[in-house]
This record gives sequence, C-alpha cells and structure tokens, in this order.
Amino acid sequence: MSALTDLLAFQRQTEALSSVAERLGWDQETVMPRGAADQRAEEMGAMEEVLHERRTDPRIGEWLEAADPQTPADRRAVQLIARDFARTSRVPARLASELARLTSLAQGIWAEARAKDAPEDFLPTLDQVLMLKREEAACLADGGDLYDALLDDYEPGMTGAQVAALFDAMRPRLVALREDVLGAARQPQALSGHFPQETQLRLARTCATAFGYDWTRGRMDLAVHPFSSGRWQDSRITTRVVETDPFNCLYSTIHEVGHSSYEQGIDPDYAFTPLGRGVSMGVHESQSRIYENQMGRGRAFTGWLFTRMAEAFDGLNITDADAFYATVNRVTPGYIRTEADEVQYNLHIMLRFDLERDLISGRLDSRDLVEAWNVRFLKDFGVVVDRPANGVLQDVHWSVGLFGYFPTYALGNVYAGCLNQALRAAVPDLDTALAQGDATPGTEWLRENVQRHGGLMPPAEVIEAASGVKISPEPLLDYLEQKFGGIYGL
Amino acid sequence: MSALTDLLAFQRQTEALSSVAERLGWDQETVMPRGAADQRAEEMGAMEEVLHERRTDPRIGEWLEAADPQTPADRRAVQLIARDFARTSRVPARLASELARLTSLAQGIWAEARAKDAPEDFLPTLDQVLMLKREEAACLADGGDLYDALLDDYEPGMTGAQVAALFDAMRPRLVALREDVLGAARQPQALSGHFPQETQLRLARTCATAFGYDWTRGRMDLAVHPFSSGRWQDSRITTRVVETDPFNCLYSTIHEVGHSSYEQGIDPDYAFTPLGRGVSMGVHESQSRIYENQMGRGRAFTGWLFTRMAEAFDGLNITDADAFYATVNRVTPGYIRTEADEVQYNLHIMLRFDLERDLISGRLDSRDLVEAWNVRFLKDFGVVVDRPANGVLQDVHWSVGLFGYFPTYALGNVYAGCLNQALRAAVPDLDTALAQGDATPGTEWLRENVQRHGGLMPPAEVIEAASGVKISPEPLLDYLEQKFGGIYGL
Repeated sequence: MSALTDLLAFQRQTEALSSVAERLGWDQETVMPRGAADQRAEEMGAMEEVLHERRTDPRIGEWLEAADPQTPADRRAVQLIARDFARTSRVPARLASELARLTSLAQGIWAEARAKDAPEDFLPTLDQVLMLKREEAACLADGGDLYDALLDDYEPGMTGAQVAALFDAMRPRLVALREDVLGAARQPQALSGHFPQETQLRLARTCATAFGYDWTRGRMDLAVHPFSSGRWQDSRITTRVVETDPFNCLYSTIHEVGHSSYEQGIDPDYAFTPLGRGVSMGVHESQSRIYENQMGRGRAFTGWLFTRMAEAFDGLNITDADAFYATVNRVTPGYIRTEADEVQYNLHIMLRFDLERDLISGRLDSRDLVEAWNVRFLKDFGVVVDRPANGVLQDVHWSVGLFGYFPTYALGNVYAGCLNQALRAAVPDLDTALAQGDATPGTEWLRENVQRHGGLMPPAEVIEAASGVKISPEPLLDYLEQKFGGIYGL
Repeated sequence: MSALTDLLAFQRQTEALSSVAERLGWDQETVMPRGAADQRAEEMGAMEEVLHERRTDPRIGEWLEAADPQTPADRRAVQLIARDFARTSRVPARLASELARLTSLAQGIWAEARAKDAPEDFLPTLDQVLMLKREEAACLADGGDLYDALLDDYEPGMTGAQVAALFDAMRPRLVALREDVLGAARQPQALSGHFPQETQLRLARTCATAFGYDWTRGRMDLAVHPFSSGRWQDSRITTRVVETDPFNCLYSTIHEVGHSSYEQGIDPDYAFTPLGRGVSMGVHESQSRIYENQMGRGRAFTGWLFTRMAEAFDGLNITDADAFYATVNRVTPGYIRTEADEVQYNLHIMLRFDLERDLISGRLDSRDLVEAWNVRFLKDFGVVVDRPANGVLQDVHWSVGLFGYFPTYALGNVYAGCLNQALRAAVPDLDTALAQGDATPGTEWLRENVQRHGGLMPPAEVIEAASGVKISPEPLLDYLEQKFGGIYGL
C-alpha cells in the first residue's frame, strides 16, 4: 500500500513536470520571440534531463516490486508506469542523448535539403539516424522485431504485421476508388476568392464552439504547423490561415478540436496519472478525424457551414449547399500528404509505412529510397513525382527519428470508421443536430465511449468496446465508397 | 577546479529550470485559460519542489568547500551561490511550505476584504503571516535584526537603519514640495477624452521601440498588473489599457521596458549563472524609473510624444507641447500608491516602510494597523483616508508575505536620481535625441555603466561606480524640486 502511494505520488509530480515541458513547447511554437532559440534549447534540455532522471529513478523499480494495486485504475497505472520504466531503462543514456543531438541537427539538414530539392544532402544524415534508431529498437525489442519495438511507442500492442495486413486489405479498394473519382464525369467546383484572416479566425472559433471545444480550458493561436497541446484544464489548439483557402484553417481547427476534446474529456480523476492522457496516437487521431471528416465534412454540417460562410464572405463562388458539400470533399491529384483528401490520405500513409519498415529491417538501403518512393508513388497514385520536395523530402518525420509513427495516422482513420458506424447507430438524429451547427450529441457519445477513459484500456480494447466490432477497415471503406460514390455519381 | 566546474554546471541547470518556472508564471498572467488554475498550481508546485531540492542539495556545500575560483566573475558567482545556499538551508522545509500555503490563501482573503472594505476580515490572517515571517526572519537573521534579514532578500547589503536614515532625510523636502505644488496658482490641465485600445497599444509599441526594447528578444501582452518577465533572449513585457487614460498604458510600458532592457542588456557570458540577472530590486527599479520618469516624463521626450499623440488621437484637449509636458506631470491628491506621481510616490513608500518595520519588530500590533496607517497618511498627505480599500488594504504585498520589499521602490528612485545626474553630465545632448523620440544614447550609457554588469557587483557598488557619487537622495530631490518648480512656477 505504501509503495503504491509513494509510486503514484512520485508519478504525479513527473506528470506535472512533463506537462510543464509540453507547455514550454507550445510557447516555442506560438509566442516565443524569434531570438530566443538558444536559450529555449537550454531550458528544454534542463527539463528533459530532470524528466529523464525521474523516469529512470531506481526507486521506481523498488516501488513496482512492492506495489499491490487493488482497483482497475491503479492496476492499469502501475502497468503503464512499469512499461515506461522498462522502456526508458533499456535505452542507454548515451544513446538517448546521441539521438537527441543527431535528430535536432538532422531536422535542419532536412529542411535545407528540401528547400534545395537535394535529397543527396539529406540521405547520409538519414542513414545515421537510421543506425541509431535500429540500435534503439534493438534495446527495446529484446530479441523481437525492430519495427514492432518502435511502433509500440506510438500504438502500444499493435505490430507491423497486423498493420501490414490491415493496409494490404485496404489498398485495392482505395486505389480503385481514387481512379473512379478522378475519372468521373461529374467534378465538383473549386472554391476561389480571397478570404481575410480575421474572418477565417472568427469562423474557426465558431466551428470549434460547434464541436464542443471548452474555451475556459483552452485557447486558439496561430502556428506554422497546427497542433494541440496540453491536457485536462489546459488543452490548447492552434491553426493557420491561407487567405485563398479557408478550408485549410477551418478543418485544421476542427481536427485539433478533436484532439483537444479527447484530452479535455478524460475523467478528471485520472489527472496527473498515466491514465490522464490519450492512450495512443492512433486513438488520438481517431478523435481528430471523426470530428474533421465523418462529422465535419458530412453533408449535414457542411450545409450549416455553407450558410455561415456565405454570410461571412461576400460573393462566394459556390451558390448552393449540395455543391458546397462536393467542393469541401473535392478530390484532386496531388503529391503532398498533408493536403490529401479522405480518399487519398491513407495511400500516402501506406507508402511511407512500407518504406520505413523496409528501412528499419535493412531490406531497403537509404541510397535506394528516392527510387523506391517514386516507383511506389507512380504505382498507387498513377503520377510521376516531379521533384524530391514533392516526394521523399516532403515530411519532417524521419529526420527527427519518428519511425513507427506514420501508420498511426491511417489507424486513426480506420478506428474513426469503426466508431462512426457505432455512433450513427447509437445517435440516429446526429445529422439533424449537425445541420444546425451542433456536434454536441456526437461529442457526448465519443466522450462517454472513448474520451473519458483516457489510458484506462489499451488502444484496441477501447476502440472495440466503443464500436462493438473487431477493428477492421470495412466500415471506413464502406463509408468512403458510399460518400464519394454519391458526390461523384459513381 | 573540478568542484567549481561541477558547481557551475549544476547551477546552470538550476538557472534554466528557474527560467522555465518564470515563463510559466508569465503564461499564467497573460494567456492561460481561466479554468486552468488548479492544474497550474500543481504544475508550479512540482517545479518549486524540484527547484527547492536543487537549491538545498548537499553537494552544493561540498563543491563550495572545494571550489577555488580565479576570475572576478567566478568568485562573485560562488559568493552568490553560497549566499543563496545558506539562506535556503536556514529555512526549514516545513516553514517554507507553511508560508507558501498561508500566503496563497491570504492573498484571496485580502482581495475579498478589500472588495468589502473590511480590514477586520483580513487582519487576523495578516497576523498569522506576520508570525511565520518573523519565524523565517529569525532563521535568516542568525541573531541579527529581523527586518534586515527580510530586506536582504530584495536589496542585499542594505539595512533597515540605512533606509530609515535615507528616508528621514528625504521626507521634509518631499512633504514641502507636495504642499507647494498642490497650493500653486498655476495648475496643469488634465487630459480628457476616449482613447481606443488599439491606438494606445500601437503607440505603446512605438514608445517601447523608442526606448530601445529589442522585439526579437521579447514581446508585449496585456496583463491586469503590468510586469516584465524573463531574461537574456526572452524578456517579455506586459501593459494594460484604460481607455480614458492613455498615460497609464504608455508609461507603464516604458517602465517595464526599463526592467526588460536591464535583463536584455546583461553580458551574455553571464547567462545561466547567478550573475545573469538584475542584482537587486532597487537597482531594477532604478532602470524602470529612469526610463519612465527622468527620460520618459522629461520635457524633451514628452514634446515628441505630444506630436505622436496628436497624430494618433483626434481632438486632443491639450494643444501645445509645454502644456502637454505639464499635463503628463500633473500632481493631484490621491490615496493610491500605484497611481502616484513623482512627487508623492516616495511618501507612500516611506509610510509603508515605517509601518512594516514596526510590524516585524513587534512595536506595532496588527490590531492597531488601520489607525496607524490613517494617522500617518493624514500627517504626510494632509488628507483623511476615506475607506480602507484606499488605505491599508490597497496593496497586495503584505498578504503574500512581501515584507522588506516596499523600500526598494523608493531606493530605485534614489538610485535613478544619482544615475540621472551622471548620465546628463556624460551625455549632454541626450535631450536632443529624446526630443526626436530616440532614447538610444541614454540606453547605451545605462547599458555600459549598469545593465551589462548584471549581478557582478553588489547593488550599492554598481550604482556608485556608475554615478560617481555616494548613494544619496540629494540628486533626486534637486531634480524633483527643479522640475516641478518649473512646471508649477514655484
């Protein structure tokens, strides 16, 4: 009993300090003066060192040994602390610090190489990152599969083989849908015009409110790459504005509201415990995606949004709600993952997943990466990559060592598909509310079935308990074929 | 040598963590969602506990024992670390935590009592705060004077007796000047009108730039009580806006620019060492005051400001620069310290200094405090306090245990008087630049003679080295009599 109390008290303080470090990261991306980079690096380094010391504190091992948790929440907390302790202890401090140093450097090298469209400037560095990540994975894997060990950081319990099976089952239907949609006779009109920043931000706030974002426990700021940050009473979102494309701002806002609602919605009893945060990147992405796509880009909500936009912006070139719905969901060929629509997005992820798995296993040499990317892109997207900045150099992830992270984006979509099927069955009049700009019934169902649990259950368990089915891509694919079949008259 | 290296490396990390805690404080006062108070309290508590553990780490004692610093900067750093270590170690953790708990509570009780104009609701709590502060002072004083031990936290090296001697020498001339000014036949006109927030903030930014504020290493936000926060590459200011009184915003901005310029101006070699911050509250206040008053409220700068304000605001009711200068420096009777002009401000401080010294020594019982305040106010200001919110309840300081802090405000004015005398002699054409809205020559002289040194020299030493005279109230009093004699035709 006393060991458990000591362990949880120690963990509570670690969680609080980790929350401080996250807030510092928010500050850096939103409000920090541009001349403060060196100082902030040293401050973040000091926080990380304190956190690393705590996470590897030998007392944790002793407390874990002696702890005898009695409630499900305490048992799960102990399990999560033990998992984190084992993982952190397995990676030598020397390796962790080398990885931190190299990836911080590699990010700058990647950015320059992308700007110059010169993969040869980045690939040798990527090779160094890969060597260290393989070394880290070997420490974590303890004889098991290297890629699985990395994936486990972001989607605990999921293996590369499981993901591959899921993705292989999805690919043919997605490729076929993509071809049908792009070849369809009926093509939605593009939105055009100039949409002033202030008006976009006002509308984005209205949308965030419509999706139940709690402003007393959050705020919205501008950032180059939108993100959400923080938990419980202080979960902030960011957005960006492109004055020719208001959907960028509005839908990235709704997406981040999904992430933030998850954190705001976790049972307050779990605050400052390992249960007090989203349980995996995939489950997190399921929340952002179901808000953004299944609810936000549906016919009902876009009908309401059409009226709001027509009020806010003079002379919208789309003149009725059905056409507007098609415009919001318009599919066009493109190279860039972050700009991809619902049909093509997962194809982008699958490409990266297969390549990174082969890079980690050594089946693919980084010198052959550009060729492998371009061949695969042509195969799945039917388009020749015009330049490396639009191909292998487009994403920051690999430069900062994020191997095993990409698949969670598509897993989130798969989970969102399962959840949406159950949500629609449980709340049949959801669209009536969404048509009035009110996502409350959706948020309430998600809060009750997913969000409030935080880390209480493993990812697959929370999704399967909420959706009432085994995780499968079928609901997502059915939804996509029906939705885009309707829009494109297939 | 190795002990010194270890000590300074350890201290470097402590300074970085303390900088993080300060940034968190900024966040709380400017951008934090209002529902995040409980969470933030726990986060701050965790940071404070980490910092307290580091500050009392027994290794510091061993390193100090073995360290053999060779340079003046290293010797001073070791001296400051030793001083802080001794002070922190002397106060039992139990007392520190009780004080933190009680003062956090007392602040709320004070705010309610002030709102209800009910000192009897606050005085019993103040008495508890006083008991703990006396206990803390006894730990720190080691047999010496209790008040001196508290004062030493804010103005190291200064004693209550020295401050009393300074203040006693100032009081008669200030009381006389106050009476002359208020009784003068010529009285400046008040500024009146409505001054929109956005325009005020734009002008405030222009003023900050005029005083050399480095925006690449800072930013400006709104706060209920303006403050500056942070050091080196990231020293931020805050301001507030009252739409009927633009001087509130403009001069509190210039005041905070003075504080921030000090922190931005410290030799970068001192970053993350105990030399890398302003050396005392008094010296800090000397920078904010010389920017705000001797430069900012002088005839030269107000001439430039008059033109800017006439451009920015339609139909200013003051129509020439001389009248505007008098308006900026207008003296009126008032109860409130924070609204006081240059003539009366120090009288407010002296009153608090004498009362708090008597409270700590036990010569004054908190039950007699209201009476003592009111008697003294009538004596120095010739006015009967109309209600406690305008009297003893007006300041937050005592509720949060800040005894020994008040005198540093007036010491800052005294130091600013000494510095201004030397500055004017060294830069005879300063007013020519100020008349063009350019305080650079003033900032450069202050940076060279005061700011860059950070904590290298004790407070009195840095002021006396810069001003070339022993610290004395004469330069300040001469300046005030000359300035206000001119404005009021005395």
